[in-house]
Amino acid sequence: MSTPSTALPLDLAALRRARDEIGDAVLHTAQWTNDPLSQLVGARLQLKLENLQRTGSFKIRGATLKIHRLIEAGEAGRGVIAASAGNHAQGVARAAGLAGLPCTVVMPRGAALTKIDACRGLGARVELEGDNLEQAAARAEEMARADKLAFLHPYDDWDVIAGQASCGLEIYDDAPDSTVAIVPLGGGGLISGVALALKLQNPMIRVIGVQTEAVAPFRRFLDDGSLEEVPASAHTIADGIRVKRPGRLTRQVIAAHVAQIVTVDDNAIAEAMVLLLERTRTIGEGAGVVGLAALMQGKVALAADDRVVCVVSGGNVDMSLVGRSIDYGLASSGRLMSISVTISDAPGHLLRLIRAVAALGMNIRHVEHRRGELHVPVGMTEVILQAETRDFDHQRELLQHFADQGLGVRNLLAP
Amino acid sequence: MSTPSTALPLDLAALRRARDEIGDAVLHTAQWTNDPLSQLVGARLQLKLENLQRTGSFKIRGATLKIHRLIEAGEAGRGVIAASAGNHAQGVARAAGLAGLPCTVVMPRGAALTKIDACRGLGARVELEGDNLEQAAARAEEMARADKLAFLHPYDDWDVIAGQASCGLEIYDDAPDSTVAIVPLGGGGLISGVALALKLQNPMIRVIGVQTEAVAPFRRFLDDGSLEEVPASAHTIADGIRVKRPGRLTRQVIAAHVAQIVTVDDNAIAEAMVLLLERTRTIGEGAGVVGLAALMQGKVALAADDRVVCVVSGGNVDMSLVGRSIDYGLASSGRLMSISVTISDAPGHLLRLIRAVAALGMNIRHVEHRRGELHVPVGMTEVILQAETRDFDHQRELLQHFADQGLGVRNLLAP
Repeated sequence: MSTPSTALPLDLAALRRARDEIGDAVLHTAQWTNDPLSQLVGARLQLKLENLQRTGSFKIRGATLKIHRLIEAGEAGRGVIAASAGNHAQGVARAAGLAGLPCTVVMPRGAALTKIDACRGLGARVELEGDNLEQAAARAEEMARADKLAFLHPYDDWDVIAGQASCGLEIYDDAPDSTVAIVPLGGGGLISGVALALKLQNPMIRVIGVQTEAVAPFRRFLDDGSLEEVPASAHTIADGIRVKRPGRLTRQVIAAHVAQIVTVDDNAIAEAMVLLLERTRTIGEGAGVVGLAALMQGKVALAADDRVVCVVSGGNVDMSLVGRSIDYGLASSGRLMSISVTISDAPGHLLRLIRAVAALGMNIRHVEHRRGELHVPVGMTEVILQAETRDFDHQRELLQHFADQGLGVRNLLAP
Repeated sequence: MSTPSTALPLDLAALRRARDEIGDAVLHTAQWTNDPLSQLVGARLQLKLENLQRTGSFKIRGATLKIHRLIEAGEAGRGVIAASAGNHAQGVARAAGLAGLPCTVVMPRGAALTKIDACRGLGARVELEGDNLEQAAARAEEMARADKLAFLHPYDDWDVIAGQASCGLEIYDDAPDSTVAIVPLGGGGLISGVALALKLQNPMIRVIGVQTEAVAPFRRFLDDGSLEEVPASAHTIADGIRVKRPGRLTRQVIAAHVAQIVTVDDNAIAEAMVLLLERTRTIGEGAGVVGLAALMQGKVALAADDRVVCVVSGGNVDMSLVGRSIDYGLASSGRLMSISVTISDAPGHLLRLIRAVAALGMNIRHVEHRRGELHVPVGMTEVILQAETRDFDHQRELLQHFADQGLGVRNLLAP
């Protein structure tokens, strides 16, 4: 935190030059004051909706600048190459396509069909290599050398950081009175750019980074400069910020300009996805909504006169996962209940159970009547019940009712 | 079509006055030129995103103006009352809340919990009355008389139409060179307002209304002036435009200013929901995306130099239905396959089946191995398989492979 900002090679003029070079290849995205969410947070909250950016995330900002500069410097070689199973791949593919440059994207084998198709649709050649992103990246660097392609790092590059800073310039232009900016933190490219753009114009603003609980190498970085080891098996629904090795350059910016780093778990992230969808009718990916999740969890201390901007950094969710993510969020906020009830296998008992649910005004979503399950005594039957509920209190009313009747109930969603 | 527009009580000055009265209670929503969708359509396509409007639909426009004028005229009585299970309810609740007026919303019994909660959250008193919207509306009119409340019709009111026209004024301001405007059509409030705003400024523009196949009273209206009877049982996922009795006033505007009315079925609507979500990261409700569906189905004849604006009128989808709608859309565009395969109940046969799926690069989503089903011969077993596929050709490759092996296959999603 004591590193003077002058040690960094990017000043405000450099950031503004970068924005001019990017031009209108990227959208100046909406920055909404959202009244219901402001009420929940207890301070004015604006959402910077980078999920509505071209290719669905901020990544196109840095990729556009980098490719522009490679071409200007005659260093674009025979094209560009990147390793990514997600937003970086799409940002690079689109930026290269617009610049008329051949683009190769290396994805781990087993990448989702839709992501592969999305990159191909943007004109990229897709190579499936390696079992994980690290192996895909190593392969991409080999191919870059062998085929004279320019390898594009997703975040640890001053040009990429300067490109992402255009997001911060927009935030300042649209709300110069902001006192707090909350930004998702993975490799650190976005927060570095945004922090530079904001702090160089308003040194008083607090920039806060949000990591996902399971992958939080920066957890204690601002306290003691340490980076936490992340186990290889670490899993999170915020795959866009599942970055185990933080950048060397981004670390310098974070040390100089970020005030606080907090973490949120997958439950909070799923709840934030549902909240965003309900309140803005836009979809955010897991990594995109960690800032909103941190706010909802009270991880960021706010005064009533704070003016908060929260960056929703991307919205690329595999369509087939959207429904599941929503259910996950509904369940963890007490709005979806899934229980197993053991009742007598005699006529009338199922009817009585359904009646109890209806009496409480719950919407039944799924009922399954399973006779002959091996863990249920003979003469009894198991009913799996999924219902939409108002909150956890609402659920407890039903569970109490069943308990009063002496029925065995298991919560199928209990952690 | 021959009715002169001067017969209508709203001229351009009246529409502009209405917009001034509404002020900034409503958002000037985004109107995006979407490149991938433009390519698909073969002409420049802009989406007017009223799904990003406050309360998630255009309805707040008309409700705000109506309530403003009731108050100005001293006719707001002891408050306002509306019957709706959806967007109209939320628009009225929010507009009344902002104006400090008590608001009652009558919903049919069985309305979704989330919709009830949404209206309560906006400060409205919610009454559950009647088995359907017609009965709820009748009850609301009774209550209006008994309790001296002002009943707000959802569309058949010149003030409401003038309010919705603010959407059309924005479209013209943002793209005065548009040649075609495509608008969802239910009761007709939105299309009446938009058509007036556009045609009074550019008489050459073609305004096209889109109804849902199952509820299309206007189907032949522009040809012979007839209104089609809609059976009481008619069902559609576009519940926002499931209006069986078109308005008396809106009918006059439609006759004067709408060039064409087309219909789309539920499959096309679900596909359009997925397309919108994938391409804009915003969610549209069924009724909201009928225009996009009509474009995708080639229902609107376009020239390459046409400049099209398509109104996405709302985005209020019950969260618990989003996942299902997406699956429906994925299935009808060949990207989700659900089949039953009958295989020998001997070791190794399931493995062989799974291998065939993996070899084609499909992502398996669900496998269920069901022995002892009554419709399957003894010695055989049924496997239910759900997989993500690239398109229908991709699916046919797998089905052909199974056929070559003599396996019995049933498509569980076949119509």
